[in-house]
Amino acid sequence: MSFNTFGKLFRFTTWGESHGPAIGCVVDGCPPNIAIKEQDIQIDLNKRKPGQSKFTTQRKEDDKVHILSGVFEGKTTGTPISMIIYNQDMRSRDYETIKNKFRPGHADFTYFKKYGVRDYRGGGRQSARETASRVAAGAIAKKVLRNKIGKKYKVIGAVTQLGILGCNQKNWNDDYIKKNSLFCPDKSIIKLWEKYLLSIRKAGSSCGAIIEVRARGIPVGLGAPIYSKLDMDLAAAMMSINAVKGVNIGSGMNSAQLTGEENSDEISQKGKKIKFETNNAGGILGGISSGQEIRVSFAVKPTSSILTSRRTIDKFGKNTSISVKGRHDPCVGIRAVPIGEAMMNCVLLDHLLMNNAQCKF
Amino acid sequence: MSFNTFGKLFRFTTWGESHGPAIGCVVDGCPPNIAIKEQDIQIDLNKRKPGQSKFTTQRKEDDKVHILSGVFEGKTTGTPISMIIYNQDMRSRDYETIKNKFRPGHADFTYFKKYGVRDYRGGGRQSARETASRVAAGAIAKKVLRNKIGKKYKVIGAVTQLGILGCNQKNWNDDYIKKNSLFCPDKSIIKLWEKYLLSIRKAGSSCGAIIEVRARGIPVGLGAPIYSKLDMDLAAAMMSINAVKGVNIGSGMNSAQLTGEENSDEISQKGKKIKFETNNAGGILGGISSGQEIRVSFAVKPTSSILTSRRTIDKFGKNTSISVKGRHDPCVGIRAVPIGEAMMNCVLLDHLLMNNAQCKF
Amino acid sequence: MSFNTFGKLFRFTTWGESHGPAIGCVVDGCPPNIAIKEQDIQIDLNKRKPGQSKFTTQRKEDDKVHILSGVFEGKTTGTPISMIIYNQDMRSRDYETIKNKFRPGHADFTYFKKYGVRDYRGGGRQSARETASRVAAGAIAKKVLRNKIGKKYKVIGAVTQLGILGCNQKNWNDDYIKKNSLFCPDKSIIKLWEKYLLSIRKAGSSCGAIIEVRARGIPVGLGAPIYSKLDMDLAAAMMSINAVKGVNIGSGMNSAQLTGEENSDEISQKGKKIKFETNNAGGILGGISSGQEIRVSFAVKPTSSILTSRRTIDKFGKNTSISVKGRHDPCVGIRAVPIGEAMMNCVLLDHLLMNNAQCKF
Amino acid sequence: MSFNTFGKLFRFTTWGESHGPAIGCVVDGCPPNIAIKEQDIQIDLNKRKPGQSKFTTQRKEDDKVHILSGVFEGKTTGTPISMIIYNQDMRSRDYETIKNKFRPGHADFTYFKKYGVRDYRGGGRQSARETASRVAAGAIAKKVLRNKIGKKYKVIGAVTQLGILGCNQKNWNDDYIKKNSLFCPDKSIIKLWEKYLLSIRKAGSSCGAIIEVRARGIPVGLGAPIYSKLDMDLAAAMMSINAVKGVNIGSGMNSAQLTGEENSDEISQKGKKIKFETNNAGGILGGISSGQEIRVSFAVKPTSSILTSRRTIDKFGKNTSISVKGRHDPCVGIRAVPIGEAMMNCVLLDHLLMNNAQCKF
Repeated sequence: MSFNTFGKLFRFTTWGESHGPAIGCVVDGCPPNIAIKEQDIQIDLNKRKPGQSKFTTQRKEDDKVHILSGVFEGKTTGTPISMIIYNQDMRSRDYETIKNKFRPGHADFTYFKKYGVRDYRGGGRQSARETASRVAAGAIAKKVLRNKIGKKYKVIGAVTQLGILGCNQKNWNDDYIKKNSLFCPDKSIIKLWEKYLLSIRKAGSSCGAIIEVRARGIPVGLGAPIYSKLDMDLAAAMMSINAVKGVNIGSGMNSAQLTGEENSDEISQKGKKIKFETNNAGGILGGISSGQEIRVSFAVKPTSSILTSRRTIDKFGKNTSISVKGRHDPCVGIRAVPIGEAMMNCVLLDHLLMNNAQCKF
Repeated sequence: MSFNTFGKLFRFTTWGESHGPAIGCVVDGCPPNIAIKEQDIQIDLNKRKPGQSKFTTQRKEDDKVHILSGVFEGKTTGTPISMIIYNQDMRSRDYETIKNKFRPGHADFTYFKKYGVRDYRGGGRQSARETASRVAAGAIAKKVLRNKIGKKYKVIGAVTQLGILGCNQKNWNDDYIKKNSLFCPDKSIIKLWEKYLLSIRKAGSSCGAIIEVRARGIPVGLGAPIYSKLDMDLAAAMMSINAVKGVNIGSGMNSAQLTGEENSDEISQKGKKIKFETNNAGGILGGISSGQEIRVSFAVKPTSSILTSRRTIDKFGKNTSISVKGRHDPCVGIRAVPIGEAMMNCVLLDHLLMNNAQCKF
Repeated sequence: MSFNTFGKLFRFTTWGESHGPAIGCVVDGCPPNIAIKEQDIQIDLNKRKPGQSKFTTQRKEDDKVHILSGVFEGKTTGTPISMIIYNQDMRSRDYETIKNKFRPGHADFTYFKKYGVRDYRGGGRQSARETASRVAAGAIAKKVLRNKIGKKYKVIGAVTQLGILGCNQKNWNDDYIKKNSLFCPDKSIIKLWEKYLLSIRKAGSSCGAIIEVRARGIPVGLGAPIYSKLDMDLAAAMMSINAVKGVNIGSGMNSAQLTGEENSDEISQKGKKIKFETNNAGGILGGISSGQEIRVSFAVKPTSSILTSRRTIDKFGKNTSISVKGRHDPCVGIRAVPIGEAMMNCVLLDHLLMNNAQCKF
Repeated sequence: MSFNTFGKLFRFTTWGESHGPAIGCVVDGCPPNIAIKEQDIQIDLNKRKPGQSKFTTQRKEDDKVHILSGVFEGKTTGTPISMIIYNQDMRSRDYETIKNKFRPGHADFTYFKKYGVRDYRGGGRQSARETASRVAAGAIAKKVLRNKIGKKYKVIGAVTQLGILGCNQKNWNDDYIKKNSLFCPDKSIIKLWEKYLLSIRKAGSSCGAIIEVRARGIPVGLGAPIYSKLDMDLAAAMMSINAVKGVNIGSGMNSAQLTGEENSDEISQKGKKIKFETNNAGGILGGISSGQEIRVSFAVKPTSSILTSRRTIDKFGKNTSISVKGRHDPCVGIRAVPIGEAMMNCVLLDHLLMNNAQCKF
């Protein structure tokens, strides 16, 4: 059971509401003797935090992380690592608008019906603020993976589609992704994307996005069939992120349109090096990593909080309408890039530990 | 941990290899006092079993299920239900071709590298034969759900894209799906599909497919955020099926291209009845069922076993090539329909139990 | 998997070291709409906290609990409840004595060998300070159980043996237990116990104890055979408490000496009321609650930190000796009473939820 | 969740009723490339099976095990190992006596109240026949442990108290245990035990027993605090066995009567060899193995099925009485020896895998 816990051997439990005193997570199962500093985690949190460009929400949060346990004299001890982030910008706004009305596209209605009670302030537990905890856990997973696998281990994500605008995947450039605030991998398209996104924001509208996350340097053998397949766990990980509606591994949904000949990733060997001609499989065969680059992409729906008035009901069953003002991302997908990377890191470490347990001793 | 177990409160554990003496599963956590007969399960197994039309493999398997425990005088007792299906058509074929060579697109390579050993006969554990066990478990879940929710509960799946050919979703017809061997929901397209598939088969090639599974009559409130969200568990369930490479909830990957206005499923109420104008969410908000029809679709890649020769390596690291002869489905996606339905039933029952545990007492 | 998480449906995850900045726990799976105040939890924490009598350690800890999430406007919301207790009395003592030496009877040696690193300050993670988190979780479980079962639900623990001194169980008096600082249930023995314990303390020695925990008002049917039997989970719960070496259910180890006739708890019925003549079973048959009072007892070994010098080795493999000075309980078993009660509450709620999930809908 | 599954990384799921067609278990998480034959398992099953001496039930069961999956060409493949044992001696006896009456000391009453239905034939699922599955799983665990740790790894159990008769632990002799049908470790007491047990049997009565299981050759470091402590998992494992009412680790309940000086197992080192002067801890400190011999003992209550008439009620709430005739063990504790050994093997392998996962890579 795992309502608020993710992972099997490397597990993290998140807690906290958008406008409560703090959010946080407890990482359990982390190997001992790994050097970890708060600053390692802060770097990743900073990639996700709001208020960094004109394309994201202007809510101000330092997202400063504090480690409360599990690290002693700079190293993990094998005991649970508790991290806390105090909430700061809990603007004294008027929650009356959303207190009783259910915002379409949000989980207001379902939380209320399920639990009979909900913390409506900023979405409470359903807020994407929870994802800061995932990024913190992912930063630890990354440190462990780098320590165990080496520097060849790398995870990098990008926005590959912004609303109706795609990009040219052949132009994918790791370095460029880090240099632009849209996590765009294709320099040739960035101007168009920015223009498009500003127009969306000005209109008080929003758009969706597709995020792709790639992992390199993965050994062959991660993944535990049948019901802990690597792709199964990655799909679950990405689908658990707020607003995600679809997940692809490798060619993903497009696989349906391929023939067997097109889809087979032919194999050859030169010396010790095994080469796959193509990577429709996204680096995973039968739920087990093949040593190829792992490729996962996922779709984030457009931000549900928009200026345009939408019809809805309130908690008393009355028909009404709502228009959500305030500091919202025109495209929440953008800030999902570091979250997708974090989930990739966590799943891969989890499977590295599982594989060690069963197969490497 | 759950290498070969699926589910949290309603759990099933599958075992068995393609060409071993039998396959089976153990269902744990099933509520007591539910009437179950072997025939209830057999009906669903028959929908999946091979050799039923010219469009599927001609391997002959009765797939006759035997209940060995957990049912007493026709009713479940709350104890584990063990089911076994003996393998029959273990044709004395020459396995030498695939014994040492890794078939591209299959998990031969990764199983061997992970475990250092593998049952190569018919793919062993990696064979889709394992999915018969899921169908058996799903049949039990369905009986429980019908018993608890009532007759309004219904799950139905269909093939909505066959290779490069789509269908008109507006023509979706439940009854028609049951009447054609391609599980096509759109009568107007069937002739074209059949012609296309025969040409694929004749060419010794294969194609992919998209399967959509719909569930109706679901109460509001199923799904346990954050890490047992209903859509998260459905994504995991579908991605665990052999050859699945992508999963969509509602508008899925297409959500990325929508605006906030288009994507918001507006809500209104008339008497006690809550109505959503559209269903981009696929019946799930914040990981919790909204009461709308649940819609999940997934892509199945083309059958990897094709006649055309493909380059590969053998277990000794030598470059070689392989052409897979024999009794293969030109489109494995077709037989995935009852499997997708089964997984939907299992996930929904699991969440019904979880919701009862926490929220309904 | 559950390194630092206890429970299945009602789960708590604890974190923190004896001399770190704080300890805490995250409770997951708690039903919504239960009234909870920090004060409810504080009352139970105060029963366990140190420095309350001359019979316990003089370390000063307020053990003040703060709820950081999961409770909104005084009620649980069904989301994780995070609680934190800041450490205060981290006396600037000289840790050099225990930094490199392994204290016999403590886990210094095994933690170091397992993890290759350890927080030696006050025992770090192995310290019984962790049990404050359990008491906090148990206080929440108790609130839920009272809400769902009613006021007839009651859990009460006592010390039934103090070192070599037993008590007369027939004199068990709930009210008296609350009135004495040794949690003694038998007024006739208390003077002797106090005298004995003071002599132990003066000698710089320590003694063990047996704690018995009783639960009343439990419905028939809690417990999920075979591997979530109620007694199995209670045994695990109690054995997980620091320094516990034995667990009995009902007649426990003494059952070995009974005959079948003596041991059979005969049953009779008067109206709707079922009566068992005796309670050797401790209220559990086949792993399922019978409706009788549940009785669990467990032995706590004597405090390992004693003044008398003991031979040991240091982390460099050198033979040496150690004498542990400082503020230690002469009998750690005494403060285990509220911990045992807490674990009883948590296990019972967990099983109430499990039973509801499978059998009560 | 684990109603019928035991273990975390090395897991087994058991199924089957006393008088159904078969019982069995599925072992999941077993490392690959371990040589396993049915005969390896059969040897251990034969130690437990009924009808072997005048001191056990005369029910005739071959308990012949069949491996249905997970082993290929004599070696484990890392996939689930399904084992089945067909029931044979389902004597066509008259179940009318126990069909509606609840046998005191048995779980008839609680199963019926919990599930509202029960397979009353021979106790159905509550029968100790289920333990054959554990012995099968334990035999596999033992093979893996021998393979990984080497021949120094050994688990041996014995009856150390038979009803009111103890034995002299100083006379413990591994070889002698194997030579007598009472698993008595002390040759000097055996005659007395046999005489005592025959008198119990003749009287149609029964007696309890204490079983002690010892494990040697265990590396330091097994055990995952706080909630997967090795002693916690061993306590759960033993308490899950039918009729067990108490579990001790090392000095166990007797620890309560020791002083700190007596209880501290002093440590010294000679060369690389670490020596503990005593073993009150039973080889476990802070939930982690210390490298000493692991010692667990547990009490089995007397067989509840006795000739003497006992008062009880029937399922209609009527007062009545019952006298259980038939083929019952006068002391079920005796056949618990191989079961205790099996559980020890399973728990130790589980923890070896867990330790590898987190700490050994």
